[in-house]
Amino acid sequence: MEMPLNLDDTWVWESIGESTRRRAETSCAEARRRLIDRSGPGRGFLGWLDLPETIESHVSDIVETAGRLREETDVLVVIGIGGSYLGARAVIEACGGGTRGFPRIRYAGHHLSGKYLASLLDELEGRRVTVNVISKSGTTTEPAIAFRVLKQWMENRYGRREAAKRIIVTTDPSKGPLRELASKEGYKTFPIPEDVGGRFSVLSAVGLFPIASAGHDVRALLEGARWMRSCFLRDEGGEAPSFRYAAARTALAAVGKRVEVLAVFEPELGMVAEWWKQLFGESEGKQRKGLFPSSVVYTTDLHSLGQYIQEGTPILFETFLRAESAGGDLVVPPLDGDSDGLQYLAGRGLSWINRKAWEGTALAHRAGGVPVMTISVAGLSCFEVGALLYMFQAAVAISGYAIGVNPFDQPGVEAYKRNMFALLGKPGFEREAEALRRMQGAG
Amino acid sequence: MEMPLNLDDTWVWESIGESTRRRAETSCAEARRRLIDRSGPGRGFLGWLDLPETIESHVSDIVETAGRLREETDVLVVIGIGGSYLGARAVIEACGGGTRGFPRIRYAGHHLSGKYLASLLDELEGRRVTVNVISKSGTTTEPAIAFRVLKQWMENRYGRREAAKRIIVTTDPSKGPLRELASKEGYKTFPIPEDVGGRFSVLSAVGLFPIASAGHDVRALLEGARWMRSCFLRDEGGEAPSFRYAAARTALAAVGKRVEVLAVFEPELGMVAEWWKQLFGESEGKQRKGLFPSSVVYTTDLHSLGQYIQEGTPILFETFLRAESAGGDLVVPPLDGDSDGLQYLAGRGLSWINRKAWEGTALAHRAGGVPVMTISVAGLSCFEVGALLYMFQAAVAISGYAIGVNPFDQPGVEAYKRNMFALLGKPGFEREAEALRRMQGAG
Repeated sequence: MEMPLNLDDTWVWESIGESTRRRAETSCAEARRRLIDRSGPGRGFLGWLDLPETIESHVSDIVETAGRLREETDVLVVIGIGGSYLGARAVIEACGGGTRGFPRIRYAGHHLSGKYLASLLDELEGRRVTVNVISKSGTTTEPAIAFRVLKQWMENRYGRREAAKRIIVTTDPSKGPLRELASKEGYKTFPIPEDVGGRFSVLSAVGLFPIASAGHDVRALLEGARWMRSCFLRDEGGEAPSFRYAAARTALAAVGKRVEVLAVFEPELGMVAEWWKQLFGESEGKQRKGLFPSSVVYTTDLHSLGQYIQEGTPILFETFLRAESAGGDLVVPPLDGDSDGLQYLAGRGLSWINRKAWEGTALAHRAGGVPVMTISVAGLSCFEVGALLYMFQAAVAISGYAIGVNPFDQPGVEAYKRNMFALLGKPGFEREAEALRRMQGAG
Repeated sequence: MEMPLNLDDTWVWESIGESTRRRAETSCAEARRRLIDRSGPGRGFLGWLDLPETIESHVSDIVETAGRLREETDVLVVIGIGGSYLGARAVIEACGGGTRGFPRIRYAGHHLSGKYLASLLDELEGRRVTVNVISKSGTTTEPAIAFRVLKQWMENRYGRREAAKRIIVTTDPSKGPLRELASKEGYKTFPIPEDVGGRFSVLSAVGLFPIASAGHDVRALLEGARWMRSCFLRDEGGEAPSFRYAAARTALAAVGKRVEVLAVFEPELGMVAEWWKQLFGESEGKQRKGLFPSSVVYTTDLHSLGQYIQEGTPILFETFLRAESAGGDLVVPPLDGDSDGLQYLAGRGLSWINRKAWEGTALAHRAGGVPVMTISVAGLSCFEVGALLYMFQAAVAISGYAIGVNPFDQPGVEAYKRNMFALLGKPGFEREAEALRRMQGAG
């Protein structure tokens, strides 16, 4: 089988001393061992490690349900936020958006814009609609509000009985308000495994059902993930891409880098970068530690952030993410008179030019003192994307343990939620509300 | 007149000593004086300062041309990258996308994706198309390639004579290949003032023509910019938002902050954040200085980067950008049985809930030790957006001078371009190509 993914970290090590390298590799090897032994913190949330295997028993149900709904759906509205949203969207966009003959996918419940939701409802008029609401707890504010609005809209449109056939719930396997509602209303449900956190859930029904509904091959996605998983599991020598990526960024953090810029060279990979930011930011960013994850889409952002990366404050390193072949190329046509001076490119494909842009940028930024590495996927089909997602998950689990945090919790997201509930007047938060009013008054 | 914009920097100063504050304010006052005196570096590129006034003589032409084309256009393809792209798109999206009855706006030449360009050409089939190509030099690779493709497409579709009436060129007022081509073919042109750099050009024809073509009120946009300009010019006491924003970020950089996160609370402001990143990154990021500009869209990114911002490495501060009223609200409907526990929000508008999310987040991040400030615009109409853009331009000019760089050049963007030309085989770059091949071989 062709390698779905290659990591070139050669140039990273030019700026890092041998002892720093060895320390990073040792701590990553120890981290990997604790993952496989299940002896590290957060060990109750390691379900993602085996998900490419354990999900198998659900795949037929997911694929068949998606196939059946496809026949009677023009638009599938996927309601979710954070880990219940980014993974599915990342895969769907990376693999080329919706596939002809499959429902269009629209997202809701991922922010609080009334304007957006109103315009989405406009778009649904006259179309056959199915809703997939994804929430482990069932009480997260944004998706819960969007589901209230969509549930009402669906029942007005279809009547309660028929609407119930067009609402698919992905939630906790046994408890929580969404599970209860689904039982009461008779909604079709998919489980979110209890030992899989939101940002590690793309290969569960959370991601697989929307991805299958968009017409993409979830079996190939899982096959790519399994390829990378076995690479990770049998990697005694520290050669797996997940290990080497984790070791490189651990060493770069050790020499004072504070920001990792993930630079994608295909616009279709923009949402993969958003998914990556949650995965790395939420896993590492605690106890005042962790690299700040940022992203750019090249070549467009070379014309905005290129100057900063080349010559600004030297706190960052750059990880290029590119595809050897992105599909759908286009050739530069000839032009009478060569008025734009581009004749030397006539007949060249844009993907070849894009490749040269990557090479030129990597050389320039490296010469400017920016450590650079490159992750290349062979193409943008589900197989390569599945390998890529698993690689990133394994890498952040290693690097999180290596810097001494629990990569599987998110204690810091409660603070703003508590404040918000208090300010919204949620019952039970009266005392916090009073305290916040005093703070605001004093501000 | 109502204030279009308000800056609340109160909480920034809680964590900054009095002497640091005074040093930042003094250096910003000196920077402002040198801007107004035109005695600082890059003084040949201060045309943006007076652009809201000096553009007046072109506005009728811009508005009338846009109005005329509107009658015969379904899709306007805007070709540009960086400063020739981000400003127009930022305003069009902030003000609510395309307006009914006006052409749809599509973008090209902002990256090297052949797949994207091919799918754009598909979309144009059967529709009436106008092209606006924007490039000061006329030789930037991405837009030049896209224009080659679109010019050929237009001439095949309409014939050369008719295509010439549907191609609008925004370029250097007197020289360069695009200017020459426009003269030869008889294209309608708009000038890019020689003393205005790309990232400061949104209030020239670069931004105004696409914005007017999308149906937005460019006169109101300029009125907002003039409001902010007179605020900036008469600001002897350091009270203008541009000055206070510059002083706050200069002080935060002085106490060791390295990253500014611009957190927008309306998805429509996402492209304003992209424009802001170029403006600040390219203006400040040189001589190994400058704050790294990053952005998030809330509340969605609270569920991805919220954890990092609350508890990660303390290198960042946060600037919230929000609208008092974003228009098009939607109300949370009631639900029998309150199965989602949201009954306390029934009847509330999403914009009110979004406001509470902002307040709760600001309080939480401040409590977590993150310096926060807030820029509030009254609404998302052209008037407020014009004020906001001018405020940011004046602020970065001040902060750039304050940290001792020339905010109006971009010496670092040449490095990757030279490499790319060499690797692409551009005539005249043979020696660089040879050197790069040796470097790659050794890499």
